Amino acid sequence: MPSKSTTVGRKRPARKQRSDGERSRTAILNEAARLATVEGIGGLSLSRLADAVGMSKSGLFAHFGSKEELQLATIETAEGIFEEQVRHAASPDQSGLERLRALLDAYLSYVESGTFPGGCFFASAMVELSQQPGPVRDRLVDFLADWMTTLEAAIKDAQREGAIEKREDPAQLAFELEAFLLLANTEFALAQGADPVKAGRRAIERRLEAATT
Amino acid sequence: MPSKSTTVGRKRPARKQRSDGERSRTAILNEAARLATVEGIGGLSLSRLADAVGMSKSGLFAHFGSKEELQLATIETAEGIFEEQVRHAASPDQSGLERLRALLDAYLSYVESGTFPGGCFFASAMVELSQQPGPVRDRLVDFLADWMTTLEAAIKDAQREGAIEKREDPAQLAFELEAFLLLANTEFALAQGADPVKAGRRAIERRLEAATT
Repeated sequence: MPSKSTTVGRKRPARKQRSDGERSRTAILNEAARLATVEGIGGLSLSRLADAVGMSKSGLFAHFGSKEELQLATIETAEGIFEEQVRHAASPDQSGLERLRALLDAYLSYVESGTFPGGCFFASAMVELSQQPGPVRDRLVDFLADWMTTLEAAIKDAQREGAIEKREDPAQLAFELEAFLLLANTEFALAQGADPVKAGRRAIERRLEAATT
Repeated sequence: MPSKSTTVGRKRPARKQRSDGERSRTAILNEAARLATVEGIGGLSLSRLADAVGMSKSGLFAHFGSKEELQLATIETAEGIFEEQVRHAASPDQSGLERLRALLDAYLSYVESGTFPGGCFFASAMVELSQQPGPVRDRLVDFLADWMTTLEAAIKDAQREGAIEKREDPAQLAFELEAFLLLANTEFALAQGADPVKAGRRAIERRLEAATT
């Protein structure tokens, strides 16, 4: 897959003019990612997507040779959006605790702002494909592992900086914080009200209060 | 739907002999619930299930008139299993705190014991159908609301009994505990290792320690 597609959906000005083919690919993949959170990534067949974007199936086939290739390219697009909306909220200049708070807060904003109609793209896709081995599921497992590692790294830095208690197990604390994000997302996607996100923010606040020095 | 099917999957001795038709219906619905956690409840069409249970599509059609009827009957079966394995772990004789601990523990055992190959039936189905309005989604939303009410009722009783601090907001505490269950289930379904369930148990222990008097 061209590396350029990882910048899909970012708000920064493009450095160079993109060709019609790339623009079209970007539009198709944004629609695919949106659709995956409504109908499931498993329902993302070339013919279903062709209907949704108003292209012929053969036109789509020119972009993506198979359903699996389409699913992987859709995940790549969703990763670009997640990077922009969530990961970029934290900067290497910040302290560990600042980065941790920024990431948790940005995740809840990404859910709440309706980036995807069905809530977090990855939370949906992971549940859907958990029992379907293959490269698509593997990529989602890697995504979750990377995200947990990012949270843990911020916690470990905060411990080194003396901001989070040494007695906290970083993996356990990351698990508890991620749990609040996941339930906030799941209930938000079901009910579309602000309450689950508020409950998630309160839970994070309370947990960090107990963990900080 | 016949009320008898709510007892599907329970281990108690049946009070009266069931007919062949009912036995067959039970076997079909148990397979349907299992299959729904692997391939999704949306993939639960009459023809897919006919393949899985080795019956003709017309034979299945005699049991269930439509895909929606099949999905609703499958949810009813899964509710019976959840009642037996999780809800029945708590008894009205117990204190609020005992009931709360029993329910949380039973949920994690229900996940860990592989009742369904893809983890909790309801966690999967809820994520999958969150953006698909209709009676099937409504039933899942009701299930989650009932479960949260059960946790909250146990917390409120524990507060009245002086076992949980009055300053705890029951809905917020229920949210935090349910979050640990959901992430433990999701990670367990993805990785099938014992670690997420252990992390879930540790998180619950720590949270209840902070909440109890």
